[in-house]
Amino acid sequence: MFPIMEYKERIKKTKEKMALEGIDVLLITNPSNMNYLSGYDAWSFYVHQMLVVTLKEEQPFWIGRKQDANSAKATTWLDQKNIYSYTDDYVHSITKHPMDVIARVLDEKGLNNCVMGVEKENYYFTAKAYEQLQKGIPNVVFKDSTLLVNYVRMIKSDLEIEYMKRAGTIVEKAMKTAIEEINVGVRENEVVAQIYHSQIWGTEKYGGDYPAIVPLLPSGERTSSPHITWSDQTYKLGDYVIIELAGCYQRYHAPLARTLAIGEPSQEATDLAAVVNEGICETLDFIKPGVTCEEIEEVWRTTIAQHGFIKDSRIGYSMGLSYPPDWGEHTASLRAGDKTILRPNMTFHLIPGIWYDDFGIEISESFVVTEKGIETFAKFPRDLYVK
Amino acid sequence: MFPIMEYKERIKKTKEKMALEGIDVLLITNPSNMNYLSGYDAWSFYVHQMLVVTLKEEQPFWIGRKQDANSAKATTWLDQKNIYSYTDDYVHSITKHPMDVIARVLDEKGLNNCVMGVEKENYYFTAKAYEQLQKGIPNVVFKDSTLLVNYVRMIKSDLEIEYMKRAGTIVEKAMKTAIEEINVGVRENEVVAQIYHSQIWGTEKYGGDYPAIVPLLPSGERTSSPHITWSDQTYKLGDYVIIELAGCYQRYHAPLARTLAIGEPSQEATDLAAVVNEGICETLDFIKPGVTCEEIEEVWRTTIAQHGFIKDSRIGYSMGLSYPPDWGEHTASLRAGDKTILRPNMTFHLIPGIWYDDFGIEISESFVVTEKGIETFAKFPRDLYVK
Repeated sequence: MFPIMEYKERIKKTKEKMALEGIDVLLITNPSNMNYLSGYDAWSFYVHQMLVVTLKEEQPFWIGRKQDANSAKATTWLDQKNIYSYTDDYVHSITKHPMDVIARVLDEKGLNNCVMGVEKENYYFTAKAYEQLQKGIPNVVFKDSTLLVNYVRMIKSDLEIEYMKRAGTIVEKAMKTAIEEINVGVRENEVVAQIYHSQIWGTEKYGGDYPAIVPLLPSGERTSSPHITWSDQTYKLGDYVIIELAGCYQRYHAPLARTLAIGEPSQEATDLAAVVNEGICETLDFIKPGVTCEEIEEVWRTTIAQHGFIKDSRIGYSMGLSYPPDWGEHTASLRAGDKTILRPNMTFHLIPGIWYDDFGIEISESFVVTEKGIETFAKFPRDLYVK
Repeated sequence: MFPIMEYKERIKKTKEKMALEGIDVLLITNPSNMNYLSGYDAWSFYVHQMLVVTLKEEQPFWIGRKQDANSAKATTWLDQKNIYSYTDDYVHSITKHPMDVIARVLDEKGLNNCVMGVEKENYYFTAKAYEQLQKGIPNVVFKDSTLLVNYVRMIKSDLEIEYMKRAGTIVEKAMKTAIEEINVGVRENEVVAQIYHSQIWGTEKYGGDYPAIVPLLPSGERTSSPHITWSDQTYKLGDYVIIELAGCYQRYHAPLARTLAIGEPSQEATDLAAVVNEGICETLDFIKPGVTCEEIEEVWRTTIAQHGFIKDSRIGYSMGLSYPPDWGEHTASLRAGDKTILRPNMTFHLIPGIWYDDFGIEISESFVVTEKGIETFAKFPRDLYVK
């Protein structure tokens, strides 16, 4: 939980954007946005729930499943009267839909004839949910407000940065564990078991929260399939392993990627790692308030081009507070065409990589933009690790 | 991976249902359904992807992000020519949507003037995705086919049951760990760190996969908030803890819940645990092929009513193969009104509970319906555990 004043400030900024875009009522179904504005935190996003912000009322209100209303009381700063719920017969029913109850609540509160923002491109706002909502309050004009709150979230408060630094300390431990545990004959799942232990145990002072993505550590030819998850096969001599994982503290993330060679790496791999490292150094050196996302990607691209690598791709994204299935914030991307101007307390995951046909090198840093440059959340050497 | 014949059998059953419902083309975006029909398995469901089944073609085809096409090649039984992809500039872009590419692929394949089933109530099929798809192939008649494949999945093959038994062995270990580790002065996250280690390490023979829901172990007054996740606070003497977690083997789940008292439990708690246990015994004894879901719930309800407890609720659901955020299959529920008839090789999580104001008892079993009754996946005494 953050101080109530911080939540009120976030609500204020959200309302300012709503007013600017002509939105009277904002229905927030993205769990990260719900958490950001109310503090709500529970693994209940697998059923329909939302937070409703209106221009007129000071507090937002929460609507969700009855048994989760207790979680709302326990984790949010909202008054009890602003917590509404639906009964369990609406859960995974083929005849009843939670949006019918939600539409009724909105209707009874007089929110049935206005401009309403909905997060159309959010995992937890299904096509069906939108249909039912439209049926329930037919006089409402709906607007797509998918990233409205996400953009408010982009510039973090100092306390949010502090949480991400704690996540950074946790990810250092988890990455150290991964590098220690990976070896010939060890099963991939055994390494992940140890990584999870590090991620959740956290530090003496700060316990770890669950990251929004599971640890990924594809090896051998699977390094070209970055989102494939672990198996119970063993690592082999000659494998390269790309390790991508995050530390998480109270839903705030610090992701990190490193590459490891099991056995002596080839000259080609060592050279490639040096190129990636040079690219990262140049890129991080360039970043400061005022530069744009596309300028950052250009520095990376021109640096590696000097070594003959032509690669035009997204090399990072804004991130921070998140829930599964992704720790990305879905706002700014470090890629050509993204003209977002960097400001202090924005936070990114810079994750470039270069792949040959049979292996690749991926090394990343999570960082906060400071007054003069950047600071990485984890302090972890960017070597090509060798076992 | 299952034998190809098993995938073909699943496709056959899916097509039979499609034909019956007048659906020419089925767009599958639920990652569990994609896995079930193709074998596809990667943490890539945070971007748009789908599997397309047509009545005319033998194999389905996969469409997703370019870098995930390698995962499709590595994990599915599909020919390479049936794997299509979109480039990275479509990922989390505010100007381009992956469904535009997907609509184009469908259009080019002549699937632009037919009846198309879509999973409208699926986490990974957003309101926006549906809108873009409708724009891209405007002559298509869309039908809601949310649970079409889920219902095919309800009756498991013997090999699927074997996978769930392996998950059952893993959950026994994870629950044993939880009960051993919870104690006065131990932080909640430290217990979860050990649980994760057990879940993922698995057994000597079978490595653990990530369960679709994180371990839940609310204590004290938080036992009335079943979906609240762990903190880094320590357990206290007198706390009751409800532990709900799953073993997972290659995406197949065996969930289990037990209740633990830290310190001597009150007479009230011991009595309540006895009632819950009696209810579970009577309910499990009753289950066999031919009975209905609502009859099962009625047995539970009348058994606890003999002890003065009136509770009318959902006490379980069909489950098995799944991805986050839920391990439930969203088909049959053990509750009043659900007339689903049980068949051999259906699999359920029976999770009843009774709550007082200040604490509750929750004890569960995952089971498979056999020819004559049921068999639980985990063999784990249903005691009220005391530390």
